[in-house]
Amino acid sequence: MTIRPESLTVPSTGILDDARRRDDLDPLTQYARGFATDGATHLNGNSLGPPRESLAGELDRVVTAQWAPRQVQAWFRDGWLDLPRTVGDKLALLLGAGPGQIMVAGETTSTTLFNALVAACRLRPDRPVLLIEAESFPTDLYIASSVARLLDRELVAESRTGFDAYLREHGQQVAAALAAPVDFRTGERREIRPTTALCHASGALSVWDLSHAAGVLPVDLDANAVDLAVGCGYKYLGGGPGAPAFLYLPVRFQSTVDFPLTGWHGHARPFEMGPAFEPATDIEQARTGTPPLLSLAALNHALAPLVEVGIHALHQRTRELSEFFLECLAERDPELLRCLASPREADRRGGHLALRVPDADAVERALADSGVHVDSRPPDLIRFAFAPLYVTHEQVWRAVDALGRALEGLR
Amino acid sequence: MTIRPESLTVPSTGILDDARRRDDLDPLTQYARGFATDGATHLNGNSLGPPRESLAGELDRVVTAQWAPRQVQAWFRDGWLDLPRTVGDKLALLLGAGPGQIMVAGETTSTTLFNALVAACRLRPDRPVLLIEAESFPTDLYIASSVARLLDRELVAESRTGFDAYLREHGQQVAAALAAPVDFRTGERREIRPTTALCHASGALSVWDLSHAAGVLPVDLDANAVDLAVGCGYKYLGGGPGAPAFLYLPVRFQSTVDFPLTGWHGHARPFEMGPAFEPATDIEQARTGTPPLLSLAALNHALAPLVEVGIHALHQRTRELSEFFLECLAERDPELLRCLASPREADRRGGHLALRVPDADAVERALADSGVHVDSRPPDLIRFAFAPLYVTHEQVWRAVDALGRALEGLR
Repeated sequence: MTIRPESLTVPSTGILDDARRRDDLDPLTQYARGFATDGATHLNGNSLGPPRESLAGELDRVVTAQWAPRQVQAWFRDGWLDLPRTVGDKLALLLGAGPGQIMVAGETTSTTLFNALVAACRLRPDRPVLLIEAESFPTDLYIASSVARLLDRELVAESRTGFDAYLREHGQQVAAALAAPVDFRTGERREIRPTTALCHASGALSVWDLSHAAGVLPVDLDANAVDLAVGCGYKYLGGGPGAPAFLYLPVRFQSTVDFPLTGWHGHARPFEMGPAFEPATDIEQARTGTPPLLSLAALNHALAPLVEVGIHALHQRTRELSEFFLECLAERDPELLRCLASPREADRRGGHLALRVPDADAVERALADSGVHVDSRPPDLIRFAFAPLYVTHEQVWRAVDALGRALEGLR
Repeated sequence: MTIRPESLTVPSTGILDDARRRDDLDPLTQYARGFATDGATHLNGNSLGPPRESLAGELDRVVTAQWAPRQVQAWFRDGWLDLPRTVGDKLALLLGAGPGQIMVAGETTSTTLFNALVAACRLRPDRPVLLIEAESFPTDLYIASSVARLLDRELVAESRTGFDAYLREHGQQVAAALAAPVDFRTGERREIRPTTALCHASGALSVWDLSHAAGVLPVDLDANAVDLAVGCGYKYLGGGPGAPAFLYLPVRFQSTVDFPLTGWHGHARPFEMGPAFEPATDIEQARTGTPPLLSLAALNHALAPLVEVGIHALHQRTRELSEFFLECLAERDPELLRCLASPREADRRGGHLALRVPDADAVERALADSGVHVDSRPPDLIRFAFAPLYVTHEQVWRAVDALGRALEGLR
């Protein structure tokens, strides 16, 4: 859908001029031109977000200049076979990890989490509890439950506030504790460092689902001494629909970890095709089967501008956009701020925030009709994500303008 | 690499004319024009094979006409969310299965096998043995070993001949028996029906890895009463590098099966996002997380001509091509037939055959220099696959001609 500028409300104050001035002053604004936004405003980068304009050409190149002429040899001659690791190393730059510690094996996020949680529990064989935040994204709850059952552990789901308390009181029972640095509903942050430290104080392993943080929030995996982590390749990383997930396994566990998904690509010498599995001794052991190359190539392509800008500048831009959103909201109608379901302080939020509105679905549809893509969680939550490279201040103003009109129209 | 026809040996007999006549008479020959073969001969369809000419355009359409304009709504409005099942139903036509029994969840083959084997063992909780063919593709051995360990079962690997004997003698101990209808090295077939019947005689479940059969050999899953099956989406299905795997779960198990990979897409109502996993009651429960859409779309695109032609015509063409290969071999030098590492009878082979040669790697390279793509298994096996839609009789002759020259050159 293309927005025709003449159809927009004329701003009553200078805040639109202010938005344009902020965009003009920020060199990151130019990146938006590289995305296929089709004139729309994409505030759902916490879900999918638009592709880069150059992606179709990149896929064409992989198909017609690599696969077609070189066939199976492209795995060796075009770097395909190394891609799970080279993409992982690019991600490492965004996640604060040294090289050789992140693998994009080619599985979905759910399955990657399964592999990580089984491995984490096996590293703590004598501890009966697998701890998880009760507010986790549902698939995390489902997978953790399956792992607990397979390994005969007890799954304990504690609310956001009870989680740390449980670790303090019962930490010595906990094999692994799974949490997310950003709540998928409200965008509220959980600091990685103190919770990880709490795990380590009692010998539990700290496992993080970075899906809503990767590419928008510094997570400093090495510095925070995170034990294992996973995350999806879509959302802020922009790898496209169902992009393969990643897994972080720091060097200190690479000689003792024991993954259940023992596909041949994780073998120390996969092409010898021996009868017994002998895992690679480095991050390669986190590989599974032959990865879905086209989806992996799309993720690889998506990472280039993110790595070029760097995670701190990405985070800064996102903070500015989300703060400006709240400014626009206040300017439009101070009452709207009362709908905020997220922390008011930018430091306590990830890349998105949520508002409570009477009928989230209807608001989402009305916004879509105005060319503003957001994402609702029924019954009453709409989420606005401020992806740093294709959202502009001017679009943030337009989104608030459209939101104001939508809410008025639904009253 | 483009072959210049003038550089080829002039045939000493009329067999090349014969090849061209056979091609002219077979309407399937016209399909070859739809593949991006770049003038080369692709006898490695058991590994990857060439893309369709139209694939890059199809991917462009998914990216620029679906993803970019419709964003996350494309999951609903462009059928993305249903694709794991609709692709599964297309595969069902090639595999002799009714609809609603095959799922392409979006994982690698190794992981899909893991999910299937855990489920199979759980359907037979009191049986201690997981049986596998010792000649299985290595990843099957690795995954089966991991599953046996997780579920505290004994993995028994029996040679091709000992496998059925074990079932006869100890079948009542066996929870699940994993075999392949086509040996990945030699192309030798194992009949699905008698082995499955042998499983059922003792109450074991019959699990098949169809990777080297799907798209080239009728496997009649429903008629043969197969219990579970998996297979990869590349090879003869043509889904491209690392295309997602499929899983077959017949209706009769859909109310009792219990998969370990409990990702949210397998939930009965995934978008309610409830805290407890409640599996869908149909084939949807075989889903895991959000599937890698681009790779899935490529597999979907690859299936169209295969489904149009149908598995029996595909198989017939492959038989003719492989028999013609042996004719050409005999015509070139009857001694070459002595190198055959596969059964001589077409009925006893899948879509490929193998020759033993002194230095398989060198032969593969020499053939590649002549524009003939094959695939070797060191030290002494070269495999020739006769994918039905892009290999012609004329190319088969060219391949044998190039092989003869390569072997002479290496002597």
